Amino acid sequence: MAPGPTPTVPALPEEADAGARLQEWTCPVPLRDHEHVILGHGGGGRLQAELIEHLILPAFGGRTLTRLADAAVLDAGRGRLALTSDAHVVHPLEFPGGDIGALSVHGTINDLAMMGARPLALTAALIIEEGLAIDVLGRIITSMAAAARSAGVEVVAGDTKVVERGSADGLFITTTGLGVLADGVNIGPERARAGDVVLVSGPIGDHGIAILSVREGLEFAGELASDSAPLHELVAAMLAAAPGAVRVLRDPTRGGLASALNEIANSSAVAIELQEREIPVREIVASASSLLGLDPLYVPCEGRLTAIVDPGGVEAVLEAMRREPLGVEACVVGSVSDGPAGLVTGRTGIGGVRVIDLQIGEQLPRIC
Amino acid sequence: MAPGPTPTVPALPEEADAGARLQEWTCPVPLRDHEHVILGHGGGGRLQAELIEHLILPAFGGRTLTRLADAAVLDAGRGRLALTSDAHVVHPLEFPGGDIGALSVHGTINDLAMMGARPLALTAALIIEEGLAIDVLGRIITSMAAAARSAGVEVVAGDTKVVERGSADGLFITTTGLGVLADGVNIGPERARAGDVVLVSGPIGDHGIAILSVREGLEFAGELASDSAPLHELVAAMLAAAPGAVRVLRDPTRGGLASALNEIANSSAVAIELQEREIPVREIVASASSLLGLDPLYVPCEGRLTAIVDPGGVEAVLEAMRREPLGVEACVVGSVSDGPAGLVTGRTGIGGVRVIDLQIGEQLPRIC
Repeated sequence: MAPGPTPTVPALPEEADAGARLQEWTCPVPLRDHEHVILGHGGGGRLQAELIEHLILPAFGGRTLTRLADAAVLDAGRGRLALTSDAHVVHPLEFPGGDIGALSVHGTINDLAMMGARPLALTAALIIEEGLAIDVLGRIITSMAAAARSAGVEVVAGDTKVVERGSADGLFITTTGLGVLADGVNIGPERARAGDVVLVSGPIGDHGIAILSVREGLEFAGELASDSAPLHELVAAMLAAAPGAVRVLRDPTRGGLASALNEIANSSAVAIELQEREIPVREIVASASSLLGLDPLYVPCEGRLTAIVDPGGVEAVLEAMRREPLGVEACVVGSVSDGPAGLVTGRTGIGGVRVIDLQIGEQLPRIC
Repeated sequence: MAPGPTPTVPALPEEADAGARLQEWTCPVPLRDHEHVILGHGGGGRLQAELIEHLILPAFGGRTLTRLADAAVLDAGRGRLALTSDAHVVHPLEFPGGDIGALSVHGTINDLAMMGARPLALTAALIIEEGLAIDVLGRIITSMAAAARSAGVEVVAGDTKVVERGSADGLFITTTGLGVLADGVNIGPERARAGDVVLVSGPIGDHGIAILSVREGLEFAGELASDSAPLHELVAAMLAAAPGAVRVLRDPTRGGLASALNEIANSSAVAIELQEREIPVREIVASASSLLGLDPLYVPCEGRLTAIVDPGGVEAVLEAMRREPLGVEACVVGSVSDGPAGLVTGRTGIGGVRVIDLQIGEQLPRIC
């Protein structure tokens, strides 16, 4: 966290509605009555100290963060560590089912979970555009803190920079996750092999379609919501159900399920065939995709995973998934073969086969 | 690193001039002949895979990064870990003595070093504005990789996002550092106590004045250079010289030496008195500061530190510092007392005393 005087640390707010918390972080000093962020909030002086003391620390609490040293110190015991960083630039900042704050926590926890790692700590670096409403910043920070608390992971360090109006788009959040890998866990995109089974944890495309519908002002936008969620508990259940059976995990974010599977097929030098009619897609997501000219296979999710599993462990893994709230709709959608390395194909409803290639560029910019 | 197919990993480039490297990362495919970044370079598709394969991986090399999994896996042995994140938004992107790439590596290594931690690994998350010249991006990434290599720290994971023209200012880089703390090392802003001595490692203010002079187009800008440098080896030498004697370390970045010492005085509930004429400031930095109406005490450094040291260990620590390239000009600049908690004062050349307060807002925006 950026320099500032040691604050009198407010008590960690209990789980309460965001409105009540909004009041908390404006007390006792209402950020010098600022309603918008100004450059001085990033300057390492009194204004920044106030922003951190009255808005950021009350939201996150936590003993490590409030020490305000240059780095957080953690006791990790022994073992292998997983480390990941993600820059979040989603537009708009708030959307049905989430906001950039919660999304940044979920996205980073999920990147750790996809390695089979248990999340140990998060850091958050904010780049704020001058003029952002303090109110909006407060809601997003509160939501971010709630997401971290609900996932059982502490935000232990951070940084806040403010840039001039026009030099950023509201708010960018880069989150880093540090995780611990249990002994024997060995998951990676290069581990798929012929005969393995391809699973998904639930319906795909909700996140991308929810955001795009809001941007496009579609009428049914209100019925759509992002699937943004932390997957580490689902993964823990899967790994416990059949030790060694889960070979690859991936959350299909940018580029969707198609890109995630292309990447796996490439890394493992195998072919993957999907049964397209087995892939769960909510009806409203399917309609909206069709209206917007999008293929749901390429639309990002933020709370789903795809897994490549040894055939011997599939039943146990599926059962464990379906007992978890985020895996109720888990199912088999395809299989791995020693066909052409890197090739992903889909068998369509009428029995044809199409190549599911990596897209060239950006189907949905600023989606996460 | 963002999703993409497993690349054929080019050999790690040897230390060579940046020009030669610039050629390397444009081979074999010249990024589809793009001269500027387009949105598709952030979309998780082929274009992004090419950017990563042909520009980012050849620069950083490293076995961990090239695995392109969702998170890097590290073996940290046992012990305490330090974790820090910094968002870098410096303007301009390139300046005398450095650029945003090298600065982001140095700044993050320094945050770890200020806890007494040995850097273990870095991550880098880039937010790129559409339209940034690939040439500029290449120079910065090459410089970033050179800074990491020269400091002996590997960049193990990363992320790349591209936002529309006007939604960012060229390039922002958020770096995260993971470090290991040796047993017995216990350094923190709350550990200063009456009788301790205040050191600085060298002349202050070079970084801030170098950047500001370029921005303002001052004639003597060419004679100024940022002090941007990694301080972990200097710190290791200090800690080895007198175990337990170094109580607080701080790199005076935003807000300069004045803010760093205010923060320490607050955290430790002590007073600090500086002998202002003992504080080293290069003549050209002093002249430029005076011209620009700035007090060098508030001007950021990126390769200097201030230390609070037990009086019994000061001689040994100073000797060790002066043997290191980055500590040749190390000296004593003040002392700690049990005066009013949080008060920092300066004894001026003519014997007067002034209060050195925390500034209110932003003296030098976008300086790091």
